[in-house]
Amino acid sequence: ERTAGRYMDRLRARYLPDQTVGEALAELRQSKIKRVRSLYVVSEQDELEGRVDLQDMALAEPETPMSDLLHPVQAVAYLNSTEEDLVKLFDDSRSDSIPVVDQAGKLLGVIRYTNLFQAAEEAATAGIQRMVGASADERALSPALFAVKRRLVWLHINLLTAFLAAAVVGLFESTIAQFTALAILLPVVAGQSGNAGSQALAVTMRGLALKEVSTVQWRAVLSKELKIGIINGSALALTCGLGVWLWSQSPGLALVIAIAMVTAMIMAGIAGALVPMILSRLGQDPATASSIILTTVTDVAGFLAFLGTATGLSSLL
Amino acid sequence: ERTAGRYMDRLRARYLPDQTVGEALAELRQSKIKRVRSLYVVSEQDELEGRVDLQDMALAEPETPMSDLLHPVQAVAYLNSTEEDLVKLFDDSRSDSIPVVDQAGKLLGVIRYTNLFQAAEEAATAGIQRMVGASADERALSPALFAVKRRLVWLHINLLTAFLAAAVVGLFESTIAQFTALAILLPVVAGQSGNAGSQALAVTMRGLALKEVSTVQWRAVLSKELKIGIINGSALALTCGLGVWLWSQSPGLALVIAIAMVTAMIMAGIAGALVPMILSRLGQDPATASSIILTTVTDVAGFLAFLGTATGLSSLL
Repeated sequence: ERTAGRYMDRLRARYLPDQTVGEALAELRQSKIKRVRSLYVVSEQDELEGRVDLQDMALAEPETPMSDLLHPVQAVAYLNSTEEDLVKLFDDSRSDSIPVVDQAGKLLGVIRYTNLFQAAEEAATAGIQRMVGASADERALSPALFAVKRRLVWLHINLLTAFLAAAVVGLFESTIAQFTALAILLPVVAGQSGNAGSQALAVTMRGLALKEVSTVQWRAVLSKELKIGIINGSALALTCGLGVWLWSQSPGLALVIAIAMVTAMIMAGIAGALVPMILSRLGQDPATASSIILTTVTDVAGFLAFLGTATGLSSLL
Repeated sequence: ERTAGRYMDRLRARYLPDQTVGEALAELRQSKIKRVRSLYVVSEQDELEGRVDLQDMALAEPETPMSDLLHPVQAVAYLNSTEEDLVKLFDDSRSDSIPVVDQAGKLLGVIRYTNLFQAAEEAATAGIQRMVGASADERALSPALFAVKRRLVWLHINLLTAFLAAAVVGLFESTIAQFTALAILLPVVAGQSGNAGSQALAVTMRGLALKEVSTVQWRAVLSKELKIGIINGSALALTCGLGVWLWSQSPGLALVIAIAMVTAMIMAGIAGALVPMILSRLGQDPATASSIILTTVTDVAGFLAFLGTATGLSSLL
């Protein structure tokens, strides 16, 4: 991964606390660096002492010592700070530049936020790839073999979870053998609960990433998704039940799919909110493989709800 | 949506081109604004004339007229510019502040990038919600009814596409009636192609969003996904075929699922790359409902590949 060294402008001048503002401005003129807002001041041993704002310098008398204008530095980066560390530092400090120091506290250079625009956007959008088991490092035009290596691991994990979901269907083999229509409608229930779960997942995951919500508020998030599940589940149960009634002419089958739909969609919404919150509590990125985990849950929930209801109400089919 | 007015610092001082640097600095001292990098200069009629960098002012003689230091302004915002417009302006201009003008070109205020950190991150992460049919406006703690309204439309569209996929399964009703094991394994093939398709979708969508790839490069992207589909599809076909052989003791069923797996995963990868590129070509956000569209394609591809192969090779089952 790219680190601070890549984004850092190396120092072309040293500013010392006992320099006057006039002397520092003369050095700045020499260094030909453009459009800075702050200068970083170091000790004789090059240790970072603080920040002086150019605005204060412009307003001060040229004889003022730089030490009079010194502000403490809110955040520092190290040469091996990753892009993600840097984005977080800028995000937390709300600065437009961050000094880079070595382990001894010696100033090495400065990173300006504008150099990090692209990296910040990349970091913010990495979750979309992580949730489906593609590495955040993969780019649209990465070599195929690079992509294969990272994606294949998760596809195999997905295969295992898919077999788990298939085993659930297998529990109801005799019901399916009796009513083939169930096999035809099975993807409808699983598909709807998958979509409803993904909606809850996306909103919760983004809320966690933007720090608009924390795992402490899990009750509020679950209560929201429960309400949505009940309302959307009921609406879809109605539409889907009517559709199945028209198609199959079987009010029993329509009732079964309506009950399954509302049940599966409530479970999916709650699972969609829980998966990223649990990952986050476990110290993981809330995106990691979240979509793969969620699909397993929504598939199993959909299959159980539909085939379980059908088995229970098989006298109506 | 929130507009420029919300992020703008109103002007507390006017800077004119025939002012001297000394006079402008005196005004800046009065205005008590902290840590600016540039001042915006206006005409007597308050029309924006250009930008003067504080660094140039600090280095200039106090008697220098501001007009000598004037730079053209690269980007302006309007009061009704949306958050998204603003993020794009900052992204394109790589400035750290952007002036806000009215329709007549009069300067109203200044937006600093640091005020927009949060909005920029929100804009970058909105795609995760759009792809599953949740509005980008929805937040983790939005009222349930707000969320219901936006999500329900897409869930109904998803229902229609799920019925379409079910209709494909329906075409093979007699084959399923004969071999119930097919109904049990159906979700495995659909689930794998869904995951593989989502990986291609995520990487392509992010590449488009970060402008690392454009729709003009569709051949390169499709060729990458084709290669990945062949390699990953073959690997999964092997693992899955062996698993099914062990479970069912039927080499014929193992062969059918292996052929279906590689076929479905190749189709899924290509569809995953195509969906965001086609949406983008149509002038849509490449994220819009992309996951819902893709799931339909990968479900249909998985069902057709598996049940079609099974029907063709039914003598081996």
